[in-house]
Amino acid sequence: MEVWKDYQEKNKDRFLNEMLELLRIPSVSAKSEHKNDMLKCAEAVKNSLLSSGAQKAAIMATDGFPVVYGEYFLDKNKPTVLVYGHYDVQPAEPLDLWHSGPFEPVIKDGKVYARGSADDKGQFYMHVKALEMMVKTNTIETNIKFLIEGEEEVGSPNLAKFVHENKELLKADVILISDSSMLSMENPSLDVGLRGLSYIEIEVTGADHDLHSGTYGGAVANPITVLSKMIASCHDENNHITIPGFYDDVLESSPEERALMAKAPYDEEAYKKEVGVKNLMGEKGYTTNERTGIRPTLEINGIWGGYTGEGAKTVLPSKATAKISSRLVPNQSSQKITKLLLDYFKSIAPSSVTVKAFEHHGGEPYLTPIHSKGYEAASKAVQKTFGKIPVPVRGGGSIPICSILEKELGVKIIFMGFGLDSDNLHSPNEKYGIENFNKGIQTIPWFHKFFAEG
Amino acid sequence: MEVWKDYQEKNKDRFLNEMLELLRIPSVSAKSEHKNDMLKCAEAVKNSLLSSGAQKAAIMATDGFPVVYGEYFLDKNKPTVLVYGHYDVQPAEPLDLWHSGPFEPVIKDGKVYARGSADDKGQFYMHVKALEMMVKTNTIETNIKFLIEGEEEVGSPNLAKFVHENKELLKADVILISDSSMLSMENPSLDVGLRGLSYIEIEVTGADHDLHSGTYGGAVANPITVLSKMIASCHDENNHITIPGFYDDVLESSPEERALMAKAPYDEEAYKKEVGVKNLMGEKGYTTNERTGIRPTLEINGIWGGYTGEGAKTVLPSKATAKISSRLVPNQSSQKITKLLLDYFKSIAPSSVTVKAFEHHGGEPYLTPIHSKGYEAASKAVQKTFGKIPVPVRGGGSIPICSILEKELGVKIIFMGFGLDSDNLHSPNEKYGIENFNKGIQTIPWFHKFFAEG
Repeated sequence: MEVWKDYQEKNKDRFLNEMLELLRIPSVSAKSEHKNDMLKCAEAVKNSLLSSGAQKAAIMATDGFPVVYGEYFLDKNKPTVLVYGHYDVQPAEPLDLWHSGPFEPVIKDGKVYARGSADDKGQFYMHVKALEMMVKTNTIETNIKFLIEGEEEVGSPNLAKFVHENKELLKADVILISDSSMLSMENPSLDVGLRGLSYIEIEVTGADHDLHSGTYGGAVANPITVLSKMIASCHDENNHITIPGFYDDVLESSPEERALMAKAPYDEEAYKKEVGVKNLMGEKGYTTNERTGIRPTLEINGIWGGYTGEGAKTVLPSKATAKISSRLVPNQSSQKITKLLLDYFKSIAPSSVTVKAFEHHGGEPYLTPIHSKGYEAASKAVQKTFGKIPVPVRGGGSIPICSILEKELGVKIIFMGFGLDSDNLHSPNEKYGIENFNKGIQTIPWFHKFFAEG
Repeated sequence: MEVWKDYQEKNKDRFLNEMLELLRIPSVSAKSEHKNDMLKCAEAVKNSLLSSGAQKAAIMATDGFPVVYGEYFLDKNKPTVLVYGHYDVQPAEPLDLWHSGPFEPVIKDGKVYARGSADDKGQFYMHVKALEMMVKTNTIETNIKFLIEGEEEVGSPNLAKFVHENKELLKADVILISDSSMLSMENPSLDVGLRGLSYIEIEVTGADHDLHSGTYGGAVANPITVLSKMIASCHDENNHITIPGFYDDVLESSPEERALMAKAPYDEEAYKKEVGVKNLMGEKGYTTNERTGIRPTLEINGIWGGYTGEGAKTVLPSKATAKISSRLVPNQSSQKITKLLLDYFKSIAPSSVTVKAFEHHGGEPYLTPIHSKGYEAASKAVQKTFGKIPVPVRGGGSIPICSILEKELGVKIIFMGFGLDSDNLHSPNEKYGIENFNKGIQTIPWFHKFFAEG
């Protein structure tokens, strides 16, 4: 399709600049101070849809941050693709580790550095620009709907209700999401599964105020020590999770599946170099790809308590808190695991402390069948632009809303991510390759074409 | 001595107001942003000594914050008392737990609420005002020297050198310190021992940057989990410290000593209510007073790592850090225990992380003999103003410089503290009773009188 190539070539600088504009809005859904930025970002997304050829676009209220909906209707006999994405981003902290401002995108070595560049503004925006390309070159072959939400990074607490109440509006034949990564530009891949998520917070309180560690140390429980012991109890010496019942529902992969996974390209030395460690650490009996793909995890995402400033303070603190999350695999249930975790931490607390445990958010694990019209269209599209059949892989991350989208709309989700694991998602210096962005815009129209033909 | 009573009665409001002025200076030695406040505070202390009758007072440089020296010379045939105190205070954090500004003293229910009110500005200032009282009423019977330092709360890193280089200047027959507490106003006590201190910081690093907990979780070490396991390993199920060699040098108290200690007034329900816990927690086989008096401890004073902000962030953090300190008892050596701790934390680290361990500061435990001219003078002075013979007790806190002062100057230290354990030392809402302040000013001249006569 030379017309696409020509159109993209002529407009690629503008495409990129428009995406950079979006990255300049600090749309951090987790932090209430960014409420206005969130609304500004939703407005910008709506406007970009309209100016890119969508016939309709609207900001639709939820009980939290609004959803941006857009559509291009072609013909009722043509299939409909629902593109899901999110305009909110992770908090940028720790700020001192960024080489440039998280919301002041800079281009270096062909990559855009900014919070949200890969996750997910840079990726959902490929779909907006692919729409423009198809509309302007008169080559669109599907109906396209956009559902761009603003609460993915906080667990989409209001989207289930929104989708349930707007089933007709969102009705589609397939859901297409670019919010994940591929193995590499040389080894394109398609995610066929994502892990679920369970996210809790535990607050341990000893004394009702901070105490002098000399006067009271040794006689009153130290909540940091207690919390550390609680955390330490969660894994055994083989890094197997010890919480009773945690693995009960895990769908074990067959030896054949594991043998297939083992064929995916993996270079341990390169992996260690990329993350900057001398040695890896994980559950005994599983490879790195298995540990991040088919096995559930329990990670401490944050901890704080006592004096954390400069120098020394001899305090016996009153409180210690941890943020803890589990990645889940089929057939674990987020709700069940969340309850298991909350109950566990409460049950192991000694009587010298009190424990508050509450849920942040969760989401179910998700699997996409390889033998489906949607997967085949994605596979052929990637092959068209990358020159290789993509490898199906299980992604380690989570998009909590997936299982709900499938349940409510009754169709499968296709993950066609163009990021790389090394994009520093959720970390300082998040980046997204300009080549990845352009390749994505180039690949998406092929998906629509193959899906319409399939 | 009616003249003292009269003088104090006439001047007590001014005494209090002068003390409040000192509390308004945020002399936090641990935080470099308060450098100017520290110098301002030293200047104020010097001026207060001069205006209170000291013949000489000077700010003397050290490699850190300066020492304030002052003296009143009476007669070379009279004994000399060296008063030690400190004008620096602990950091005020966490600020949100203060009911009023930590450096804006307020008086409530007969108590002064401010950082440093009890530890140690309010206490050393009693000696300044006692000096004034004796000088103005022409009743002084000893030579008095003042050594008021500015680095006690950070472990007096430069005082040993200062004392060594100024041995002649500081020469005295006894050292008198008011920087500790008594059991209660009804049960006056004198500390005959303080615990030593060893304070370290441990930084655990996994990946060299924060990672997405979905993409990498399960395959790369989580430094918070590792640090928690390291901390959890320090105590067994009886809250006995498990670090090899930790108890080797502990001088066990005899059954007779423990029986004597058991006679000190102690109300467990009142103690639990005061700190706000349902149950106490400590080393098996020891009472609360023993746990805080004759047993060494290991406390986590602070911990932080990963995302500690609002909401949820699915990050696999790069670093986790803890501040850890041990209170030591005779005959443990601070240097030896510090090395033991640093080595221990390095030795137990798995190869998937790197550990940096460094020392903050330390100090040796200290014991005062009951049968000495100094102790007897203090005991008689307290009896004079409180109407009861004070109970000798072992304090849980530490004044790291004590063993060095004794070694360099060759004389014993008498602890005559007028604070209460419930004064919230090192905690939000530190307070000091006005009655305690006044009683202290009243008691101190009796010490000098009895010591001169003894």
